[in-house]
Amino acid sequence: MPGVDIEISEVGPRDGLQSISPIMPTAAKMAWISALAAAGIPEIEVGSFVPASVLPQLADTAELVSHAKSISGLSVAVLVPNLRGAENALAVRPNKMTVPLSVSESHCLKNLKRTHEQLLAEVRGIRAAINGLPNKDRPKLEGSLSTAFGCTLEGAVPQSKVMEMAEKLLAAGCDEVGLSDTTGFASPTQVGQYTREIHRLLGKDKLTGIHLHNTRGQGLANVMAALDAGLTTIDSSMGGIGGCPFAPGASGNIVTEDLVFLLESMGLSTGVNFEAMFTARQVLAEALPNVELYGFTPEAGLPKGFSAATLQ
Amino acid sequence: MPGVDIEISEVGPRDGLQSISPIMPTAAKMAWISALAAAGIPEIEVGSFVPASVLPQLADTAELVSHAKSISGLSVAVLVPNLRGAENALAVRPNKMTVPLSVSESHCLKNLKRTHEQLLAEVRGIRAAINGLPNKDRPKLEGSLSTAFGCTLEGAVPQSKVMEMAEKLLAAGCDEVGLSDTTGFASPTQVGQYTREIHRLLGKDKLTGIHLHNTRGQGLANVMAALDAGLTTIDSSMGGIGGCPFAPGASGNIVTEDLVFLLESMGLSTGVNFEAMFTARQVLAEALPNVELYGFTPEAGLPKGFSAATLQ
Repeated sequence: MPGVDIEISEVGPRDGLQSISPIMPTAAKMAWISALAAAGIPEIEVGSFVPASVLPQLADTAELVSHAKSISGLSVAVLVPNLRGAENALAVRPNKMTVPLSVSESHCLKNLKRTHEQLLAEVRGIRAAINGLPNKDRPKLEGSLSTAFGCTLEGAVPQSKVMEMAEKLLAAGCDEVGLSDTTGFASPTQVGQYTREIHRLLGKDKLTGIHLHNTRGQGLANVMAALDAGLTTIDSSMGGIGGCPFAPGASGNIVTEDLVFLLESMGLSTGVNFEAMFTARQVLAEALPNVELYGFTPEAGLPKGFSAATLQ
Repeated sequence: MPGVDIEISEVGPRDGLQSISPIMPTAAKMAWISALAAAGIPEIEVGSFVPASVLPQLADTAELVSHAKSISGLSVAVLVPNLRGAENALAVRPNKMTVPLSVSESHCLKNLKRTHEQLLAEVRGIRAAINGLPNKDRPKLEGSLSTAFGCTLEGAVPQSKVMEMAEKLLAAGCDEVGLSDTTGFASPTQVGQYTREIHRLLGKDKLTGIHLHNTRGQGLANVMAALDAGLTTIDSSMGGIGGCPFAPGASGNIVTEDLVFLLESMGLSTGVNFEAMFTARQVLAEALPNVELYGFTPEAGLPKGFSAATLQ
């Protein structure tokens, strides 16, 4: 996005809403997405193309893509678990599709019901489907390296395996890979090392984004390592909804509001307007009155005399 | 401390307990301090020498110093707001005394009832009192640069003023200065800049520690900047009690448990044993059943296959 140092990729409508049981009405989701975009959030993952029987909370993803695509300048992202999901997604023309591959094969089998080879075959199918579209309609395809920093089933995941899967995802047709701390295991040391190694092996343009969880409170510390290693797109969730929340009072995903404050306080522009962002939070809070929203900055407010990098 | 990369300075018994209304019984404090030391925490700020009429929660500080001094290898720290407090402290021989000076003079007048010049005169008096003791009994004297990163009254605090006060505290007799984000305003950029500038102007040995708050959720991100700039002592509070808590579910101080996890996951040894640290948390929780304890790591547990830098 021009004029922005770091891009926030808001995953709340997908990663957040899939983790809570109340189903947010489509009109409310649209209002929230519009409010997020109005705040200057450049990219929103609006949903996931999974069967409604699996995630009824996200059954309206196609409608949301169409709505979000009507918002000028917004990058509209979706998650697709397989070729069938991708085909449904392509019908409504998102700007970006993310396919997750768990680097831990046990996790891949358990969550995505596929071996690595089966999942890579899906990716090749998705690439072919994308290439069947006119150039202007082709979304960016990202392969997300889930459980890259460790797995609740397997424990430590070797760095070499992360590199191998990154290479295979690109070979199978992904434009980019993304690192994902699905389990909240990541340390800043790992984030820095893995990012630099992928950049060295595969090129800096092949990895620009990261998805971090805050399960053990390390989310923004890991962001520091990601910034230091040159990543420029950070996933986060408004109110910290979703992710892997364990602790009472603890978000699973890193909180968009606190992330924006971190970046802006460091002089890194996000394009986000604080007041409009807090308004979007209000829209979310009103739509989900029984869901706890996290985030310190919305409660504490901006420091007296605070000067943001983005013109407010 | 030999064999340790980063020293945790636990401020819970002082900064934590002064911020809550229940008065923890002296015996319970002693048990907690013993449990913290048994977990490998190398330094504990056990209290503050302020009049009991001001902070009845800390009226037993002298007793706690004597107890903590009986624990082999533990550095026993106290806060002293003025010469009278320091004289009372010196009678029980702590290993370290911290005198806070708010870089924002409005804050200094409001919280410490003294102008900068008056406070520096107190520091000169404290230095003279220390020098009246035999060498082996002299505690280290630290001048804490409160509101270094911004003030709730004045707003932005100029970096030049922080440098000026650091120099004056050292000239008045402090062995070291410490940076303190009293208000939760600090950004990693500031932490890095101020640390490097003090190191350049006054010497690396004149600033080794930092006191960070988590008011806006930036505590561990700021720790990353502190580590990067070469600081080696980090204040934190078990369960995150104290500091400036604003948000529901939000700690004011950075949480010892999450800080230790951060450092150990980065391969930086703290000397802390996780299990014993969680036991110390339990001791605290039982002593203060109505006080909310924060921290993500104690709830989520250590990652499967986690390998700490400190031998467990």
